[in-house]
Amino acid sequence: MATIDANPASGTRDFLPAEVTRREQAFATIRRAFQGHGFEPLDTPAFERLEVLTGKYGEEGDQLIFKILRRGEHEATGEADLALRYDLTVPLARVVARYGSQLPMPFKRYHIAPVWRADRPGKGRYREFFQCDVDTVGSDSLVADAATIVAVADVLDALGLSGFRVQLNSRRALAGLIEAYGVPPELEGEALTALDKLDKVGAEGVARELVDRGLPTAAVDTLVADLGSGDLEGRVRERLAASDEGRAGLAEVDELVALTGALPGGELAYSPVLARGLSYYTGPVFEVVHDDLAATIAAGGRYDGLIGMFQGQDVPATGGSLGIERILLLLEQAAEGRAAPGADVLVTLMDDDGRADALRLAQRLRGEGLRVDLYAGRGKLGKQLKYADRRAIPLAVIRGAEERDAGRVAVKDLASGEQDTVAEDELVAHLRRALEA
Amino acid sequence: MATIDANPASGTRDFLPAEVTRREQAFATIRRAFQGHGFEPLDTPAFERLEVLTGKYGEEGDQLIFKILRRGEHEATGEADLALRYDLTVPLARVVARYGSQLPMPFKRYHIAPVWRADRPGKGRYREFFQCDVDTVGSDSLVADAATIVAVADVLDALGLSGFRVQLNSRRALAGLIEAYGVPPELEGEALTALDKLDKVGAEGVARELVDRGLPTAAVDTLVADLGSGDLEGRVRERLAASDEGRAGLAEVDELVALTGALPGGELAYSPVLARGLSYYTGPVFEVVHDDLAATIAAGGRYDGLIGMFQGQDVPATGGSLGIERILLLLEQAAEGRAAPGADVLVTLMDDDGRADALRLAQRLRGEGLRVDLYAGRGKLGKQLKYADRRAIPLAVIRGAEERDAGRVAVKDLASGEQDTVAEDELVAHLRRALEA
Repeated sequence: MATIDANPASGTRDFLPAEVTRREQAFATIRRAFQGHGFEPLDTPAFERLEVLTGKYGEEGDQLIFKILRRGEHEATGEADLALRYDLTVPLARVVARYGSQLPMPFKRYHIAPVWRADRPGKGRYREFFQCDVDTVGSDSLVADAATIVAVADVLDALGLSGFRVQLNSRRALAGLIEAYGVPPELEGEALTALDKLDKVGAEGVARELVDRGLPTAAVDTLVADLGSGDLEGRVRERLAASDEGRAGLAEVDELVALTGALPGGELAYSPVLARGLSYYTGPVFEVVHDDLAATIAAGGRYDGLIGMFQGQDVPATGGSLGIERILLLLEQAAEGRAAPGADVLVTLMDDDGRADALRLAQRLRGEGLRVDLYAGRGKLGKQLKYADRRAIPLAVIRGAEERDAGRVAVKDLASGEQDTVAEDELVAHLRRALEA
Repeated sequence: MATIDANPASGTRDFLPAEVTRREQAFATIRRAFQGHGFEPLDTPAFERLEVLTGKYGEEGDQLIFKILRRGEHEATGEADLALRYDLTVPLARVVARYGSQLPMPFKRYHIAPVWRADRPGKGRYREFFQCDVDTVGSDSLVADAATIVAVADVLDALGLSGFRVQLNSRRALAGLIEAYGVPPELEGEALTALDKLDKVGAEGVARELVDRGLPTAAVDTLVADLGSGDLEGRVRERLAASDEGRAGLAEVDELVALTGALPGGELAYSPVLARGLSYYTGPVFEVVHDDLAATIAAGGRYDGLIGMFQGQDVPATGGSLGIERILLLLEQAAEGRAAPGADVLVTLMDDDGRADALRLAQRLRGEGLRVDLYAGRGKLGKQLKYADRRAIPLAVIRGAEERDAGRVAVKDLASGEQDTVAEDELVAHLRRALEA
């Protein structure tokens, strides 16, 4: 027994109290903000029948699915019949197929939950991590797209992450642009994949990759000239105005910008070459970046072909996803060193005769709305005060036989080390004052 | 694709919005109450390395563990290397072994999380279900046992489940009693297993089972006489007074009752033959029953031999577990028919020109602290009002071109059907009044 490794499984994490507290606070903020926008919570099981998940994430994704062995007499077959949730979109599609008419339409839901992927663990890459999705199913209206962006912006603002930029584009405008550059339709996917790396590798890097992927040199040269022109948007608008698809895409972008209006906590702008892993997006796409944090903290778009996968028909849908693990890490860094207090007050234990009194006192203070820890061990006062310090509890209540007889209580301020003795009926007021100080 | 079963996997559940909302509210209440008692949240991964879990739950339990197939080139071996969490106690033991010196001692933690068991699904029996545990590790003091019972009582009271009875016993008192009845030590386990069924099968049923399990007829007769005497506690106290073990056990019970004192929301009483699946309990045990609900809604006790399993040494621990799925079901039944409103207000959409105005209006109302849904589809007003009704949203804001031009807004009360038109700057006050009505 003693030789068993006590670490969590590779790629997973234990969350100790201070971390759980911070994560729960962030989740509560997110829930409150999404609910303020009329989105409702959904929850689905950690595992699905294997056939629900396989074939949905491409060959590479399928390799990363955690499969669950059959049980009992079937265990020996070595076969799997269940698998851990890989994302929150396939479960949403299943729920829409299963409960369709029971759901209000449009169905506006958010889902904050862990997913599991058998990726190689690395810095910031886990095998168990949370996703935080918000989606509107059953509406092809741009109002739904605008409402998603406004809700995501509100959530980020509520989390204290203001100062972000929402970069917006449309799949249709992009298609028009690719056409305008003279890229053959069969190379559109290649062009989008290369463009997606603009932030990482710059215009020259994208150009090299486009050529490597077989795009016509003339098209690549024109694109690179536009990117370096200092007025990318102006040039792109001109090019898009030349085709039906381009004009329609541009109209979609402009309408969405007008609908969305001023955002809480950030800015919104048309980003003419934003591509965003376009394989399933069908309409507007967006990405929220934060310059100070050098990170994409949310993204999303319209994907009308995905949610109907179990019904064999298209169901319009649009949504967004917060980069919640990255956001939690940023909040964690921001909170560095400031541990959340484990309670307002620690009631200490002085002698065996005082134990029942201490339990009553703790319970009375709780009745006044205070969060009260009672020392549950057998240590001396010094050890108890160290325990309070460790748990960032600011005040300790101390009451030996002498104080009990005199109807008094000593209160120690852990930060200053000061100790006052007050009458029992003044205790609550004294604690409140000390907590506010 | 269309032929895939859209149901959740056998024994698991999808939680639609109204249910998630109720469950989250209960979890929030529980978290707040435990934190008010100085317990801290812990979270651990959904899966553990297989060897962490196997051999911990007996042969029967081991059969119920969901095992995860190895991945990549190893998948073909049909072997498992990971397994889904089966309870919250083994992960706690692993955390204590892993982070020991980083944790405050005593370590007071609660953990609310799903566990997975490959049980045959049935009424109220799921393969994915939540557990809600509260434990104090590292203290052998009865103060920790008393503090557990007080915290559990406070949580139940906060959940609105007052009127319960906490039945209390001690493993030591029980051992003394078994000895006093003249049961041979090697049959103690058999006797406790039979006694545990007293509530279900009555005194006669227990007697039959005791005889079947090989207990001496004289011992069984004495026990049955005591059970039927009308003064079980008096008789048991007399018998326990005759032995050292009995006296020590009784002293433990009496001291714990004195320490615990009056409970919020319920009563506490010595329950002389309460056994509670005693295989791992080593000290006080308790069970919380609610007569109106005919259910055990919480239970716990001291188990000094379990938490040290990965360290090869005993680590004192005491705790309790809420029957959280049963409690959620009770709360669900109590809330029958009263759906939580999906928002305070629905902002409707009248014409395309009014869409941006509707988004602004919704956002302005949110700034006033209201929860505002914006209709995101393309339905006519009647359909939009049906949507509001379905989501239990009490008020709808309606604003066509005419109202916009006049700087006015119509507000419809979904319950009464009444509609008022108010000036834009009176809207918030009007909505507040209507929501309070």
